[in-house]
Amino acid sequence: MMAIAERLAWIAVDWGSSNLRAWALDTRDQVLARAGSERGMLSLTPAEYETELKRVIGEWLPAMGRVPVRVCGMAGARQGWREAAYLPVPTRLDDLARAAVAPPLDDPRLEVRLLPGLCQTAGGAFDVMRGEETQLAGLVAQEPALTGLACLPGTHAKWARLEAGVVTRFTTCLTGELYGLLARRSVLRHSLGHAVDKDNLSDPGCREAFVCAVREITAAPATYPSRLFGLRAADLLDDTLPQGDARGARLAARLSGLTVGLELAGMGNDLPAGEPVTLIGNESLCDRYVLALDALGHESHRLDGEAAVLAGLGLAHRAFGA
Amino acid sequence: MMAIAERLAWIAVDWGSSNLRAWALDTRDQVLARAGSERGMLSLTPAEYETELKRVIGEWLPAMGRVPVRVCGMAGARQGWREAAYLPVPTRLDDLARAAVAPPLDDPRLEVRLLPGLCQTAGGAFDVMRGEETQLAGLVAQEPALTGLACLPGTHAKWARLEAGVVTRFTTCLTGELYGLLARRSVLRHSLGHAVDKDNLSDPGCREAFVCAVREITAAPATYPSRLFGLRAADLLDDTLPQGDARGARLAARLSGLTVGLELAGMGNDLPAGEPVTLIGNESLCDRYVLALDALGHESHRLDGEAAVLAGLGLAHRAFGA
Repeated sequence: MMAIAERLAWIAVDWGSSNLRAWALDTRDQVLARAGSERGMLSLTPAEYETELKRVIGEWLPAMGRVPVRVCGMAGARQGWREAAYLPVPTRLDDLARAAVAPPLDDPRLEVRLLPGLCQTAGGAFDVMRGEETQLAGLVAQEPALTGLACLPGTHAKWARLEAGVVTRFTTCLTGELYGLLARRSVLRHSLGHAVDKDNLSDPGCREAFVCAVREITAAPATYPSRLFGLRAADLLDDTLPQGDARGARLAARLSGLTVGLELAGMGNDLPAGEPVTLIGNESLCDRYVLALDALGHESHRLDGEAAVLAGLGLAHRAFGA
Repeated sequence: MMAIAERLAWIAVDWGSSNLRAWALDTRDQVLARAGSERGMLSLTPAEYETELKRVIGEWLPAMGRVPVRVCGMAGARQGWREAAYLPVPTRLDDLARAAVAPPLDDPRLEVRLLPGLCQTAGGAFDVMRGEETQLAGLVAQEPALTGLACLPGTHAKWARLEAGVVTRFTTCLTGELYGLLARRSVLRHSLGHAVDKDNLSDPGCREAFVCAVREITAAPATYPSRLFGLRAADLLDDTLPQGDARGARLAARLSGLTVGLELAGMGNDLPAGEPVTLIGNESLCDRYVLALDALGHESHRLDGEAAVLAGLGLAHRAFGA
């Protein structure tokens, strides 16, 4: 542990609704150590954040001196540690540090800054993000004048339009949460079984079911509610479906294709035919989006979610004058 | 209680997944008494059905003699009391009794028949119903040569095309379940609060929010996932929303409009412009569909759900030669 404290330059933290992830970094932003916990904004009062942070990163701290800690995510929400008010779009992404706030602290070794989220009110297209803006900043850190479309798949999938490093507008889709509720809580759970918790697109039958579902729903998006019940009916009546676990996996792949496909169809003019998309997120979820985008004629590039958040927090860290 | 046993001609039962409702009827199908319980197919083993039925209707039974009991719904499912196999469409609705089954019974005073559901496999448009076919039969009992479109709103909303008293095809939408999951289990629950459990379309602001949402989603159905998150964002950012309980009610009305509107848009060619719709169900839910259909230029007629199920079970009861 001494080795970490000696080489530690700063600490990056992504503190979400339900968990926190922290990285110890050296002066060249190389990762010295990782840590985390399952305590996010939903389970913490403002007074508990410092204790929880020190429980997770305490071993990295030197006995003396001051360590910069850069935090993105829900810790900066109104219900979090201390509010870092949303920046309205359009916003430069290399400028998040400007609106960061310092929470109250007892330990003199910590110098914490909470980064703001983004909000959008133009034309009644209300939207918010908190955490994803830092991943977008990580993308811009790699390519400062980037113009294009980025997608961050997840519970609340984010689509952002970037113009010369500025976020001009963005859209959030409830895709991941919708899939999870339908797969785990609706009548469909009886048909999907445990397949919902496994990544299954390595199976050719599942890949085909996923891609077919993407095509079907993009051709007729309003049939989503009837195609959902159709999964249950197919489980009861379709004798071409495989038996056993493969059956649930096939139906789960189809549910995923319907839900991701509906999201893509809904981007409309914000996803013009043939436009490439930069995907930021974990590998298996991005695999799914690559497949869906490819079915609709879009190329995609990828940036790993952890790399993106570290690059974005690093950009903010430099902006604080480190 | 003696009065009921003396005048009792037969008993009607609608036994669903999560509850049962029973009616004591005289020879002219006048309701002598109602009873019910919260024990449906999901909480009963086959051996428990007779005991539960007698717990609910026991007081109505005469000491001697035999009472016909006509049952529709999930009691006839494979996981129910005894399976009454689905009838494939197209099916005449005055003919459900033909495929009824008799479950095993200990009490000689009971003569029980479980009615079948309907299934559809044509062209891969897999679908099933169990219980709603009896309400449709009740509609046909009133008008034997009926041709038109009927909708039964609910957890799993059913749309049926009738031609001269025959169901030719039908479609189930997961609408009610989708609304319930989003309103009670998703991130939106923080914005809707308790409004979800109250019928709120008597408020002019809520009516307007509901109708606007119906129009918006039918114009752009694929934007459903982003408009869902938009409800959350509006709660955080839209300062034109009312405060307090009225705020949750307004957002709940909008969620309902988006979800019902998506269902209507998805009917596509099965709901041709200007075609009237017969709604079967409870009053407050049908009110909502009347409003949505009216916004899209469709007239609607209504049949009360209890009247429909009693007329449908009565039709089957006569077919057994009563």
